[in-house]
Amino acid sequence: MSQERIGLWLIGAWGGVSTTVAVGLAGLQAGVAPETALVTSLPKFSRLKMADWSQFVIGGHEIRETNYAAEAEVLYQNSRVFDRDLLNAVAPRLAEWDKNIRPGTLINVGSTIEKFAGPKTLATRGEKPAAAIKRIRTDIEEFKKANDCAHVIVLYLSSTEPPLESDASSWDWAKLSATLASGDSSPVPASTIYAIAAFELGCSFVNFTPSVGSNLPALAEFALKQKCLHVGRDGKTGETLMKAVLAPMFAARNLKVMSWVGHNIFGNMDGKVLDDPINKANKVRSKDHLLTEILGYKPQTLVSIEYIESMGDWKTAWDHIHFEGFLGTKMSLQFTWQGCDSLLAAPLALDLVRLTEREHRRGKSGVMNHLAAFFKSPMGPHEPEFAKQFIVLEKWADEVAAQQ
Amino acid sequence: MSQERIGLWLIGAWGGVSTTVAVGLAGLQAGVAPETALVTSLPKFSRLKMADWSQFVIGGHEIRETNYAAEAEVLYQNSRVFDRDLLNAVAPRLAEWDKNIRPGTLINVGSTIEKFAGPKTLATRGEKPAAAIKRIRTDIEEFKKANDCAHVIVLYLSSTEPPLESDASSWDWAKLSATLASGDSSPVPASTIYAIAAFELGCSFVNFTPSVGSNLPALAEFALKQKCLHVGRDGKTGETLMKAVLAPMFAARNLKVMSWVGHNIFGNMDGKVLDDPINKANKVRSKDHLLTEILGYKPQTLVSIEYIESMGDWKTAWDHIHFEGFLGTKMSLQFTWQGCDSLLAAPLALDLVRLTEREHRRGKSGVMNHLAAFFKSPMGPHEPEFAKQFIVLEKWADEVAAQQ
Amino acid sequence: MSQERIGLWLIGAWGGVSTTVAVGLAGLQAGVAPETALVTSLPKFSRLKMADWSQFVIGGHEIRETNYAAEAEVLYQNSRVFDRDLLNAVAPRLAEWDKNIRPGTLINVGSTIEKFAGPKTLATRGEKPAAAIKRIRTDIEEFKKANDCAHVIVLYLSSTEPPLESDASSWDWAKLSATLASGDSSPVPASTIYAIAAFELGCSFVNFTPSVGSNLPALAEFALKQKCLHVGRDGKTGETLMKAVLAPMFAARNLKVMSWVGHNIFGNMDGKVLDDPINKANKVRSKDHLLTEILGYKPQTLVSIEYIESMGDWKTAWDHIHFEGFLGTKMSLQFTWQGCDSLLAAPLALDLVRLTEREHRRGKSGVMNHLAAFFKSPMGPHEPEFAKQFIVLEKWADEVAAQQ
Amino acid sequence: MSQERIGLWLIGAWGGVSTTVAVGLAGLQAGVAPETALVTSLPKFSRLKMADWSQFVIGGHEIRETNYAAEAEVLYQNSRVFDRDLLNAVAPRLAEWDKNIRPGTLINVGSTIEKFAGPKTLATRGEKPAAAIKRIRTDIEEFKKANDCAHVIVLYLSSTEPPLESDASSWDWAKLSATLASGDSSPVPASTIYAIAAFELGCSFVNFTPSVGSNLPALAEFALKQKCLHVGRDGKTGETLMKAVLAPMFAARNLKVMSWVGHNIFGNMDGKVLDDPINKANKVRSKDHLLTEILGYKPQTLVSIEYIESMGDWKTAWDHIHFEGFLGTKMSLQFTWQGCDSLLAAPLALDLVRLTEREHRRGKSGVMNHLAAFFKSPMGPHEPEFAKQFIVLEKWADEVAAQQ
Repeated sequence: MSQERIGLWLIGAWGGVSTTVAVGLAGLQAGVAPETALVTSLPKFSRLKMADWSQFVIGGHEIRETNYAAEAEVLYQNSRVFDRDLLNAVAPRLAEWDKNIRPGTLINVGSTIEKFAGPKTLATRGEKPAAAIKRIRTDIEEFKKANDCAHVIVLYLSSTEPPLESDASSWDWAKLSATLASGDSSPVPASTIYAIAAFELGCSFVNFTPSVGSNLPALAEFALKQKCLHVGRDGKTGETLMKAVLAPMFAARNLKVMSWVGHNIFGNMDGKVLDDPINKANKVRSKDHLLTEILGYKPQTLVSIEYIESMGDWKTAWDHIHFEGFLGTKMSLQFTWQGCDSLLAAPLALDLVRLTEREHRRGKSGVMNHLAAFFKSPMGPHEPEFAKQFIVLEKWADEVAAQQ
Repeated sequence: MSQERIGLWLIGAWGGVSTTVAVGLAGLQAGVAPETALVTSLPKFSRLKMADWSQFVIGGHEIRETNYAAEAEVLYQNSRVFDRDLLNAVAPRLAEWDKNIRPGTLINVGSTIEKFAGPKTLATRGEKPAAAIKRIRTDIEEFKKANDCAHVIVLYLSSTEPPLESDASSWDWAKLSATLASGDSSPVPASTIYAIAAFELGCSFVNFTPSVGSNLPALAEFALKQKCLHVGRDGKTGETLMKAVLAPMFAARNLKVMSWVGHNIFGNMDGKVLDDPINKANKVRSKDHLLTEILGYKPQTLVSIEYIESMGDWKTAWDHIHFEGFLGTKMSLQFTWQGCDSLLAAPLALDLVRLTEREHRRGKSGVMNHLAAFFKSPMGPHEPEFAKQFIVLEKWADEVAAQQ
Repeated sequence: MSQERIGLWLIGAWGGVSTTVAVGLAGLQAGVAPETALVTSLPKFSRLKMADWSQFVIGGHEIRETNYAAEAEVLYQNSRVFDRDLLNAVAPRLAEWDKNIRPGTLINVGSTIEKFAGPKTLATRGEKPAAAIKRIRTDIEEFKKANDCAHVIVLYLSSTEPPLESDASSWDWAKLSATLASGDSSPVPASTIYAIAAFELGCSFVNFTPSVGSNLPALAEFALKQKCLHVGRDGKTGETLMKAVLAPMFAARNLKVMSWVGHNIFGNMDGKVLDDPINKANKVRSKDHLLTEILGYKPQTLVSIEYIESMGDWKTAWDHIHFEGFLGTKMSLQFTWQGCDSLLAAPLALDLVRLTEREHRRGKSGVMNHLAAFFKSPMGPHEPEFAKQFIVLEKWADEVAAQQ
Repeated sequence: MSQERIGLWLIGAWGGVSTTVAVGLAGLQAGVAPETALVTSLPKFSRLKMADWSQFVIGGHEIRETNYAAEAEVLYQNSRVFDRDLLNAVAPRLAEWDKNIRPGTLINVGSTIEKFAGPKTLATRGEKPAAAIKRIRTDIEEFKKANDCAHVIVLYLSSTEPPLESDASSWDWAKLSATLASGDSSPVPASTIYAIAAFELGCSFVNFTPSVGSNLPALAEFALKQKCLHVGRDGKTGETLMKAVLAPMFAARNLKVMSWVGHNIFGNMDGKVLDDPINKANKVRSKDHLLTEILGYKPQTLVSIEYIESMGDWKTAWDHIHFEGFLGTKMSLQFTWQGCDSLLAAPLALDLVRLTEREHRRGKSGVMNHLAAFFKSPMGPHEPEFAKQFIVLEKWADEVAAQQ
């Protein structure tokens, strides 16, 4: 395994998940964080000559103005996660990385997200797509050069954007690039702007959110042209993971799911953004299609996501599954998932970065279909059942191992 | 598919699961019961030219003296399962089958089970193994002949026996058969006596309980010699099914399960028997080994099974899973499973009968490893994860389909 | 205790709660129903010379066209409540009572409720308030006479009306009666129309729903003038009962409730009506004010009520209470309430009828403040804590007992 | 209110609850801890001229050898309670109090508790009751003098002792004191030894555990003779508090509780001691009698308490209440209580100390019946329902206020 440096460029760089990514990565580099919850630390993946944690350096874009220490402190105080000793140990490294964070773009992020923007980002308001892409490119290029990175992976972790009403989903790259070049800001949201900038530079793009990102035919085309890797959407961290695990059980037993009700409450920034019904729509859609795919029919479903301030980063999901058994007998399964959102998401984000880097080292490009196990709404063809998604991932690992 | 008659010989023939098997089968034969919860009614299995429900006829052994109508009424009254209209529709058929039930054996069933025995069974007390086997054989043979059955499947559904302290698990068939022939009743429990009788007759033997049954090297040897099929143990209906489905998720995500606590409450006859700590030991053992197999390490576990009369047949399991996530953060998943025990078990028992009959028609013998998905403690080599067990079953289906 | 006949006039007479009231009352009259869940059957109340169940006869208004047997069958089939034997036993009595049901009024019931109306009720559309009141009066008078009733209690059990935007809440009786007489239908909803008709006849009026009913200054004035008893609103059957019981515990322990989230799912007709956000608003308001009254401050609250068809009459409420303990430690209490809505409401409705009849026999009139324990939003001055409400009821019982 | 110093003498002084009492008291004295969870900080009690937190000084007995900083660190690490800043702020004060802790006695504490004893306490092994009492007295007297205390309250917080088989519960003080003087160690456990020493000195004695303490006729007699206040047993912190709050609801609604199952899991030292079935017996008994007292009949009950190491100080109780409603319909209520044991207990312990000191200042002696709301098994005559216990406490407050 080469010891080249690898850039990890975070979009939404001071958000809860990004902050946890940074704290965790710094902790791993300092040898004070255990590898629990890192899929790539399982023996079947760690044998694949994964990049070492020490190789990564963090930079990114962010619309707010803050710093890692302050954001980590909020998580620590509100949610009693992290350890004071860990925070102290990683503070100098976080302060270094703070210097690599640049103002983000506000193009089509919606008014709820815009409210959080600081003065530096607000100053970019009205920027045309071409200018935004150029600015983003420059930021990443400077970072790559300054840190002597062999490769940079752009990891999209910003708050969920509102769904965009546009025809762009039926356009090819020629049409999209021409439209953007014309100064028309309407067709794509910020997440896609970042993806375009990433592909122009030959970077990989990982979309951990329900936002559109690179999930457009035009972008798929452009990624291949640029020989870039990409993958998404929406990290499968909690309730949806449970659905992808439990629904196959009902299907396999021929138990008829009549209704599946899921209520999610949490109090972090993501929750505040999702409290806006427009942003929430994107998220709920991402959580709801799964059951029909797995069961082969559509039970009555309900997914609510509510911002409850006192919960902090602790997402509690209560699901009530009502199913019909033999001879028409109605039975139920309820579960309560109490997980800390950022702490569930961050290790998966780090895993995706390592898996992407490994694939990049194999010279691959395009959508990484084998990573469906990580996403609520995987791009590309995929199995909906978690167990089968994981088997696909294991097969990929066997293939990589065979080439080593 | 031939339209020969197939005998379904139930051990514990008037128990809760058997009664539900009988009600359900009669309902399916009468076309008044839906096929929900029947795995073999899923398209991927029903295409295998499964036996038609109309081919089956029920007989069996039972230590209590009662009848299907009375037992079904108890379930109806205590647990509000079944439908009065269904019960009325199947009453004549149940009354016919009642006539095929014969007194069981009490050899090594333990004092808790013995208390339920009626006069006819009590009259057999002291019977030597050879006599018991002969009596059981005769009962089944007469039933087979009277009903003109092409094949008889013995389905073991009796209450959980106490674990037996004996060396029989290291004996070969020669030694076991000689010991039993000598009049020594000590080496094996009633479930094994029934299995021997079944194999002597060339019947298949399906053990849906944690009792030993045919799960001994001597019996495996004898089954092969007799070209018989067998499989077991302990139907995977509720909490353990959930474990086999959820534990792989924690493993795949490298989340460290620190403790897994499961409390089960229910109030049926099975619960009364399991309230005896000796009988319970067998059951708890069957529920507990799974996690270590799947996770690769042993978390602290606790499984309690308690008889709560008011619950009737409704088994409620509360599980609390405490796991460590990224950066040492402790999180939890709780679930409450509210299922009607007999209604969960009966369709699986019917599935096993159909799957066994299908395999018998292919001319196979020995342990049916491909049926591990149905059992808490599958006999023979097997995957511990439910999803992988089901893939094995699907592969078997593909193989059978290819031969058709 | 006199053995006079007492009329029980149900508004929404064939709805789920009314049907259960009718089945239960007929069962009690036939001696085939136990008195579980009847507060007035507790020794401390039964000593008060309560009316005997045999004295009651049922009539009522209803906008749908159906009958008790059909409605009871729906509850039986969908929700597995009642017993077939009980239904058979009470069928003749229910058929008699069916004959006493008359078409209701649609004045201001809202479009969601209107959709359920049958032809006879639809024929009254456009009826002016004065005509509606007269028609309702005539129906009740005829029933009273035909059945030789000493007293008639009007029990309002219809689906929740939408909140009405009108100034009527600040009017006196002179203004309200004059406005209605003028042919203006706008100021009050159907529930108030029924209350006016009841008071004109000297009947008692019990409002078991969140609808306005007699909860207006003008009606309070009119009730006193007519020497009528009345009480309401919204029977406290499940989740809100739990709040009235649990919130005082947090207050007494000085534990700070940060948030209280309640999700309710159920699938009966009431649920269908509440699925209309306009009707739901009335209900949620009735469920939400309580916590602030008891705690003395306003925690973040969320109450959702969702129609999930498969649940039938089984209302499942999941509440998550997040509270701060000593030294800022966040803790939680969750509960899951699984109750059958109509079966919880019906006995309380019957209790209210008996308690009202007893108070009527004492010659009282006006709002029955001592019945606050039965309501989510009690009319008149009252304690918000359930335990204190019950002490008030016990004191009333002592007072009545002392007079006997 | 006088500003005299008040001694708080803790038995089990370095245990989890005591450590939290010490951290909390020091935090309150330093003005860095909020008063949430302190009942005596509610306006209705704080008006009673309660002692100020600054007046208290801590000393105590303990069989282990450790210190507050180390014990607080364990709670902080295992259970993520406390705040690093709070711990830093109170460290000097805790170090002072550490100096006031003396070796405890092992008389009849049982072998499970004995295992935790350090060398200094082990050196007292074999000590006769009279010597132990004298040593304890001397320790408290020296503390009282050194700290110039106007009064000392002995607060018993040690691990639950095994039930003692002895006749002492029928003895008077003359017989008990003579027996102990004779050198016979058998009749009473350590908790009673401490109570005797406390009463000899005129101290108040508060027993927050299920151990016997002063709950013997002989001790009641001796307390009155010495004009001492005392109260107990077993702080009502979580699941039992819920029972005392919820059971009255079922009683008031005439809902028939068929079964009440409660499972408790936690992983602190108390849990380790209760994992010994002998010690657990005392605890379970304390948790179980309540329902019968409140309901007036005995439902089937089950209480389990299990040591699950990963839970640390977080006690999770799952209760399943199965009740019969109208027309025989079975319904259920489940709750999950997730509370941090020491953080729930410590404020109540501090409240009891303040309430005892206030009563002492009124010149009272004997059992404080008005404090039943704080205990699972209150000494003296008492209401079993929490709401009524709290009303008794409020009446006491009114009486005290009237005298001020």
